[in-house]
Amino acid sequence: MRKKLPDEEFYHLINHGPCVLVTSGSMKRGEINVAPIAWGTPVNDEPPLVAICVATSHHTAKLINKYGCFAINLVSRQLIPAIKICGSVSGRHADKFKRAGITPSGCRKISTPFIKESAGHIECKLKTKADYGGVFLFVGKVVHCEIENRFYDGHLLPEKAKTPHHLGGSYFFVSGKRKKY
Amino acid sequence: MRKKLPDEEFYHLINHGPCVLVTSGSMKRGEINVAPIAWGTPVNDEPPLVAICVATSHHTAKLINKYGCFAINLVSRQLIPAIKICGSVSGRHADKFKRAGITPSGCRKISTPFIKESAGHIECKLKTKADYGGVFLFVGKVVHCEIENRFYDGHLLPEKAKTPHHLGGSYFFVSGKRKKY
Repeated sequence: MRKKLPDEEFYHLINHGPCVLVTSGSMKRGEINVAPIAWGTPVNDEPPLVAICVATSHHTAKLINKYGCFAINLVSRQLIPAIKICGSVSGRHADKFKRAGITPSGCRKISTPFIKESAGHIECKLKTKADYGGVFLFVGKVVHCEIENRFYDGHLLPEKAKTPHHLGGSYFFVSGKRKKY
Repeated sequence: MRKKLPDEEFYHLINHGPCVLVTSGSMKRGEINVAPIAWGTPVNDEPPLVAICVATSHHTAKLINKYGCFAINLVSRQLIPAIKICGSVSGRHADKFKRAGITPSGCRKISTPFIKESAGHIECKLKTKADYGGVFLFVGKVVHCEIENRFYDGHLLPEKAKTPHHLGGSYFFVSGKRKKY
């Protein structure tokens, strides 16, 4: 079961710096893609804004520019193999969802799918973009956000969500026990 | 002992999404500050660019605009109390370094100090800024980067560096064991 969060709480899903899967494109047009993104951050909560960085040559960048939206999918360590697959082939030439064993599912507010097997997702409408030497920094306005109930008690439960954190190359660690300081 | 990394490898310090301490200001002018930042991301590696998000009203934003530089300090869990202190008082009215028990030390390439007790740091010259509804998204060019030898073997050793990851409120978890996937 997934719970809708207020848009301004979207940052609770990614504040801790996980490697996420970003979906792009349009379900209706049958043109969709998915790619791992470690380079992203919340920008503001009111208004709710989030940034992701995508190589300008990548298919994901083309689809975000074409359809003006994207979704950020928080995933658990079970999907690290999917991250590896989605990071190693281009969506121009392959159905990465099928190859990675993940299911595109209709978003609430945008044409782009979210990943059914994700721990939660954030739906975004493109607000601005800037090219930094071959990388687009896309800033999106959050228009919907939801998370699996079992991973959230008002804040993320990282020892349950077990999110992957990318160290470069093939190295990751997985989120551990939450503590109050 | 700290090891210099090639500038284009700076992202190895923060790719996994830690909460860092950002230093700003000028050592020479005696006007310096330090603040916790969970909202930041690498933007590119060649050229090496990094983004941080800072409320426009914060003293850190004023000093980055004034001196055109900032440093990102990777810290271990021992400095979570310093993160809490630096996040709860303004540098306009207090010497946060003293209060937090951390030591400003001269950077190599910029006027801003780094934190002597940090696990590593990234020196940045301000490249662009944009105001997103009360938050500056600053993009900096990396001009120097170093890390404690014991935390790095070509990639970060998260089980040794034990970096804090902020979940919102008073909640953190600490980075765990690296695994190859």
